[in-house]
Amino acid sequence: MEQTHVEDAGRLKALIEAGDAAGIEAFLSPLHPADIAEMLQQLDVEEQIVCLKRLETQRAAEVLTVLDSKSGQALLTLLSDREVGALLEELPSDDAADLISTLTPEKTERVEALLPTADRAEIQELLEFGADTAGGLMQVERVAVRDDASILDAIDVVRRAADSIENPQRVYVVDDAGKLVGELSIFDLVVQPHGRRVRDAMHHPVVSVPVDMDQRQVASVFSKYDEFTMPVVDGQGRLVGRITMDDIIDVIEEEASKDMTRIAGTTDQELGETSIFKVSRSRLPWLITGFVGEGIGAVLMSRYEASLATFVVLAFFIPLIVGTAGNIGIQAAVVVVRELALGQINLYRMGSRVLKELQVAFLNGLVLGGILFALVYFWRHDAALGVLLWGSLLLVIFVAAFMGSSIPLLLHRWKIDPAIATGPFVTVSNDVIGMAIYLTLATAYLRTH
Amino acid sequence: MEQTHVEDAGRLKALIEAGDAAGIEAFLSPLHPADIAEMLQQLDVEEQIVCLKRLETQRAAEVLTVLDSKSGQALLTLLSDREVGALLEELPSDDAADLISTLTPEKTERVEALLPTADRAEIQELLEFGADTAGGLMQVERVAVRDDASILDAIDVVRRAADSIENPQRVYVVDDAGKLVGELSIFDLVVQPHGRRVRDAMHHPVVSVPVDMDQRQVASVFSKYDEFTMPVVDGQGRLVGRITMDDIIDVIEEEASKDMTRIAGTTDQELGETSIFKVSRSRLPWLITGFVGEGIGAVLMSRYEASLATFVVLAFFIPLIVGTAGNIGIQAAVVVVRELALGQINLYRMGSRVLKELQVAFLNGLVLGGILFALVYFWRHDAALGVLLWGSLLLVIFVAAFMGSSIPLLLHRWKIDPAIATGPFVTVSNDVIGMAIYLTLATAYLRTH
Repeated sequence: MEQTHVEDAGRLKALIEAGDAAGIEAFLSPLHPADIAEMLQQLDVEEQIVCLKRLETQRAAEVLTVLDSKSGQALLTLLSDREVGALLEELPSDDAADLISTLTPEKTERVEALLPTADRAEIQELLEFGADTAGGLMQVERVAVRDDASILDAIDVVRRAADSIENPQRVYVVDDAGKLVGELSIFDLVVQPHGRRVRDAMHHPVVSVPVDMDQRQVASVFSKYDEFTMPVVDGQGRLVGRITMDDIIDVIEEEASKDMTRIAGTTDQELGETSIFKVSRSRLPWLITGFVGEGIGAVLMSRYEASLATFVVLAFFIPLIVGTAGNIGIQAAVVVVRELALGQINLYRMGSRVLKELQVAFLNGLVLGGILFALVYFWRHDAALGVLLWGSLLLVIFVAAFMGSSIPLLLHRWKIDPAIATGPFVTVSNDVIGMAIYLTLATAYLRTH
Repeated sequence: MEQTHVEDAGRLKALIEAGDAAGIEAFLSPLHPADIAEMLQQLDVEEQIVCLKRLETQRAAEVLTVLDSKSGQALLTLLSDREVGALLEELPSDDAADLISTLTPEKTERVEALLPTADRAEIQELLEFGADTAGGLMQVERVAVRDDASILDAIDVVRRAADSIENPQRVYVVDDAGKLVGELSIFDLVVQPHGRRVRDAMHHPVVSVPVDMDQRQVASVFSKYDEFTMPVVDGQGRLVGRITMDDIIDVIEEEASKDMTRIAGTTDQELGETSIFKVSRSRLPWLITGFVGEGIGAVLMSRYEASLATFVVLAFFIPLIVGTAGNIGIQAAVVVVRELALGQINLYRMGSRVLKELQVAFLNGLVLGGILFALVYFWRHDAALGVLLWGSLLLVIFVAAFMGSSIPLLLHRWKIDPAIATGPFVTVSNDVIGMAIYLTLATAYLRTH
């Protein structure tokens, strides 16, 4: 599929270079906005502008919302205020707010002045919510009826909303004070008798999310209840907007990116970033932390300079011991963090979860220690050294497994995001602690030999 | 929220211990099946059985589909064939097939014999598709009408399907041969005139997925087109089922788990696994690979035994050089893999993506090398050693960044899952190559001093 897009983008490029406006229009007109966006990602921003101007405003606006935020931002800076305003008017409030939040403050002000008052108010309301909260995800457009309306009234409301809301999914039922009291699916409108009171036909209680809920929690509510759309309420339980599942998929992808880049010691901000200075800045903190840790390790090792000088073979195994400690710790941490995210850990039994990690560590330590013993015995013909290494490894593995599993559980209990335990701190600690254990045992061994 | 569930589970446990059947029913009856499932995860399988038997069959079946697969499996083995059959009858075909696929072959046969013929045929059809394909995700239940029907006919079909399909979302339009030619939303049924031909009111072309498409690709089609439900077609373009977005969320979570556990050198099969032997087995391959790599490193180091014995300080910096190479490589690999997954890499310009990584590596190498030089200079008062280390580090970092970024891009071009590049092989290679570079430069330096 991707291959085809590369070829298509090539043909589109040729049309742009030839300045063939009619050809570009004919080429783009049968395509889905998402396919157009995917093709535009392969073009320069100037070429993107040429294409966008050949689309109807409605379609151009849809393409813009599907482009990744960096390409979208670059495009918007090249369009006039009037052009940006026209695009924004065509969009649902959440997409409009997302786009406007990428503009400079001056451009935002100029563009907002061009919008109809109602749109401007909606967008400004949305911009006040944190981008990572339910309020930042929701759109204010929704279909709502009073609880004393009839099914036929509800159908009327849906018909009138047809232009401004794509795929309404649900009709929300509110009381006099605007409080959410129930909901109907569009499907209910088809199957219920027209004369029935909404109050008698509606489903309740309704699963809703508060406007200030963190987006990761919102995603887990969606995935738990298998809803396609969910109402958002304020502190008084009043309906203020709705969130649709397509935005939730983006949240899940974004949170997965955050967790994955965190394991690697960087941030998801660098994905798609073109400035090498920004990329470097997002990676250096972890590299420097690792460096400081390993620097402490080097100083620590220097305190055993005498042992090492007389028995250099001890140094050969340091990377192996230290690396294994790091690997064991990161395995335990990543698995526990992932199980916490998926709700697979019995919160009654955190202790037994750590115990399981220690048992696994014991098994793995036996196997790896055995391999190490065999390596040392056949290579250096030194059984005592083999036993020393086996013992050190087992102890180091135990400590790493304990830290890797217990730290995320503790962070979770303290309501801190456990994923930070998969990053630099635990890994480096395991490295340094591993080295300290090994060198201490090794020196004790040398003294007795 | 989770805290409340722990408390609730405690109260439920007390009711079970007291054998208070009416109390259990009263406790569970106001709850959403997803909430019941979440609470059951905190209980033993015997306690889960007690609760399940106090629910109506329809609700018990819903709870069962939300439980994670391991708990569900344990529960099913304790229920009689007749009880399992009754639960399966209440479920959509995809959930029924998923549950049945966790039973032993003998139990499957006995349970299937108890099902109505139509259900049995549907389930057997679904079981033939790979679990990780569109066929494995879809349900066969869907609302379809012929293209010459009227909107009123379509409304009739939807009404009659109301019992067997929850949330139909779309009415699919097929021609005489069963080929998918268009679709209507339930919303269209509300707003379109009853007498209109479906053919004239339908949307087309329809985005659909082939029955054998890989689930990761299916998920990216959903997320690209922002659809809540999508039709599945066979090789001849005939409608065979539909996939809903709630299942896609599960796919995205599953694929994220796969990628994350792969970075840590294990598999997502171990998530929630209780057997320590199985967990150990899923982690050992990477640990052993790492071990072999570091073992090669140890043998390599022994070839420089003379240099190391006369100048032990060289050994102090090995973990630092090697660890940094590993970190740089994993950062580059994880970011490139994630950008590929999110479609953020311009496939025209893979070379420039690697070049960017090398530029970042140069910047980071300057900073880290500077820190290292300062450390060595103030600690050992040896500027020449400082320069040696700075140079080695820069070279090692370059190689690690090159491998970390180019290997996933090559794998992607060769149509191999690039995520395997985030695992053991690249990390260990970077470790060993880093050590080789450092020790070679160090020995050359010693010869000239």
